Amino acid sequence: MENFEFCNPTRIIFGKREVDRAGQAAASLGSRVLLVTGSASAKKSGLLDRVKGSIEAAGARVWLLDGVVPNPRLSKVREGIELCREVGVDLLCALGGGSVMDTAKAVAAGAVMDRDIWEVFQGRAEITGALPVMTIPTLAASGSEMNGFMVITNEESGHKLAAGSPHVYPKISILDPELTYTVPRNHTAYGGVDAVCHLMEPYFNGPSPHTPVQDGLAESLMRSIMDAAASCLDRPEDYDARADMMWAATLALNGLTRAGVGDHPFPVHLVEHAVSAIFDVAHGAGLAALLPGWMAWRVHLGNGAKIVQFGRNVMGISMSGDEAADGLFAARAFASWLKEMECPASLSDLGIKAEDHPRIAENAQYQAAIWGITDLYSKEAMIELLSFCQSGL
Amino acid sequence: MENFEFCNPTRIIFGKREVDRAGQAAASLGSRVLLVTGSASAKKSGLLDRVKGSIEAAGARVWLLDGVVPNPRLSKVREGIELCREVGVDLLCALGGGSVMDTAKAVAAGAVMDRDIWEVFQGRAEITGALPVMTIPTLAASGSEMNGFMVITNEESGHKLAAGSPHVYPKISILDPELTYTVPRNHTAYGGVDAVCHLMEPYFNGPSPHTPVQDGLAESLMRSIMDAAASCLDRPEDYDARADMMWAATLALNGLTRAGVGDHPFPVHLVEHAVSAIFDVAHGAGLAALLPGWMAWRVHLGNGAKIVQFGRNVMGISMSGDEAADGLFAARAFASWLKEMECPASLSDLGIKAEDHPRIAENAQYQAAIWGITDLYSKEAMIELLSFCQSGL
Repeated sequence: MENFEFCNPTRIIFGKREVDRAGQAAASLGSRVLLVTGSASAKKSGLLDRVKGSIEAAGARVWLLDGVVPNPRLSKVREGIELCREVGVDLLCALGGGSVMDTAKAVAAGAVMDRDIWEVFQGRAEITGALPVMTIPTLAASGSEMNGFMVITNEESGHKLAAGSPHVYPKISILDPELTYTVPRNHTAYGGVDAVCHLMEPYFNGPSPHTPVQDGLAESLMRSIMDAAASCLDRPEDYDARADMMWAATLALNGLTRAGVGDHPFPVHLVEHAVSAIFDVAHGAGLAALLPGWMAWRVHLGNGAKIVQFGRNVMGISMSGDEAADGLFAARAFASWLKEMECPASLSDLGIKAEDHPRIAENAQYQAAIWGITDLYSKEAMIELLSFCQSGL
Repeated sequence: MENFEFCNPTRIIFGKREVDRAGQAAASLGSRVLLVTGSASAKKSGLLDRVKGSIEAAGARVWLLDGVVPNPRLSKVREGIELCREVGVDLLCALGGGSVMDTAKAVAAGAVMDRDIWEVFQGRAEITGALPVMTIPTLAASGSEMNGFMVITNEESGHKLAAGSPHVYPKISILDPELTYTVPRNHTAYGGVDAVCHLMEPYFNGPSPHTPVQDGLAESLMRSIMDAAASCLDRPEDYDARADMMWAATLALNGLTRAGVGDHPFPVHLVEHAVSAIFDVAHGAGLAALLPGWMAWRVHLGNGAKIVQFGRNVMGISMSGDEAADGLFAARAFASWLKEMECPASLSDLGIKAEDHPRIAENAQYQAAIWGITDLYSKEAMIELLSFCQSGL
């Protein structure tokens, strides 16, 4: 186990109808609230009014930043920052999925910075403070409700980049599983893939050779998410399944399973951010298209031991003892699960062609350079990886 | 899954030689430090001087509260509270095991209270604030380094009671596995039993019928602790084994596996506190003496389903499908593990006799009344339970 620091101060309020405590929670943090949300669903369902009403009833004033889209745009973040400064916002409240939460975090940090927030994503500036953020997720997927990360797309430069800071951990997150009953079938599945992938990245890429505690936790959460995702597709209004999915997805990227595995890249996320920056596909769909090929590529490189372990302990398959064969078997078993979840399992399933690989690899190089991992993930290595992801296993 | 709130703000600094960051960590919290420790081992090994030196080098003044004993005494807590007030302490630093950490927490809360700290344990007063606490555990067991609980023995009344408050979460805990290399063989094993039991109490006693996420995490941590404890006995200076044991034991009682299982008692701890209040045995030894019998008692009562699940998923045994037989089999398998760890596995192994049961049950009733669970754990029920624990399975 590698040395580590761990501190996750987010207060979670979890459960049925806890969304009605939004006003009480907000009142403990601020009184001039920017409510950040998406384009349509929270408005149509009445959820936006319910949350706005709760916050106003608790005595706060509310401004709205709506229209946040998947692969959330830098321009919207800048709009939010201006609004915060103009009206003197003292609390961000995100009501939506990962895009909405990440936008709220970027606004919260950007509003108190002298420099442009995009410089943080480029690795040229650091976050030294932020307005408090509260989140009310409506999708189980990103884990953004209990971590200090955010991903924003600069639609002008065509880059989708990640950044993080202890200052943008939500102070309070209200997780009400009933809010996810209406998530469409495909996005329910994509959310499960995203959460499983959050567990896979440190599990497969941590440098420490001895991490049984972390592995056990990650494997257990992967099984929970895969089981819950299947139940959610079968029975969208099964409270227990939605609750399991929501809590496991939160724990999947709150630092728990990463602590002690050592510094590690998030290569599948890295490449997916390039895919969705260029093709504007849903993040979870992009991950699904890459994951089986990524596993097969690792096996091809002779790094299949952990993929075999995943096959045995998560997919529950018996192994022959031959690492290459077993690793490929594990990757195929995962691809089968993706297909059962009606997800893409290759780049061709997304309509992406082999001729697109160089520009995906080039785009991903931009983030790889910021992360300082171009030695591991050169353009050539990425193109090889993409070739394994092109046609499915 | 039941509704819950979760917030654990403790900052963990984990790893090899991180103890040398004690001064830097302390300086971020205070400048007049009461260093709380035990009677001998940290002094003899030079660890006390190492930590004291680190804190003083960072510019703080240090006072010492030493001589804390296992089953830590209320009189020592009161001595610490007086010292804090006298010299104006602004930070408690605990260097030792659960007893030392719990003493530091009780002093931290008591020093800023008008009323006597024992009233908190009696359920007659509430903690409304505390001096900041930092811990440097030297034993993997109690989990006190990352939670808001403490257990103190009133040596005059002969009661060992537990209390908790969000105010006594350590601000920082430095977990350096090398500090546990010198823990004696028996206390290494008792620590493992204590940590496993912290996972078992919510796992076996949570009221929610649907907790696969929590069960999976608990089962995974139980397996990790049982594996690591065996390795620590075999190779006391195996860094990886000590590190696994330390981190898993911390996660075992930091709220992670309890969140969502619903309100639940800690019955084995409840009865053990009575045992060690009367007989002054090590807490982990007392738990070991009770656990197999407690499982058998639950099976006898027809509540064996979760014990069967434990047998299958943690002990890895195949089941026949008959709950009573399988449950007893699981309890016996756990008793075998305890014996391999050279732990007691029955009350008679501790020299306790059947004629002692009534006064153990009476003593435990005192805490049960404070917890409001005398309906579940009447004196008669406890005596029946103790009869299952008397002679081993």
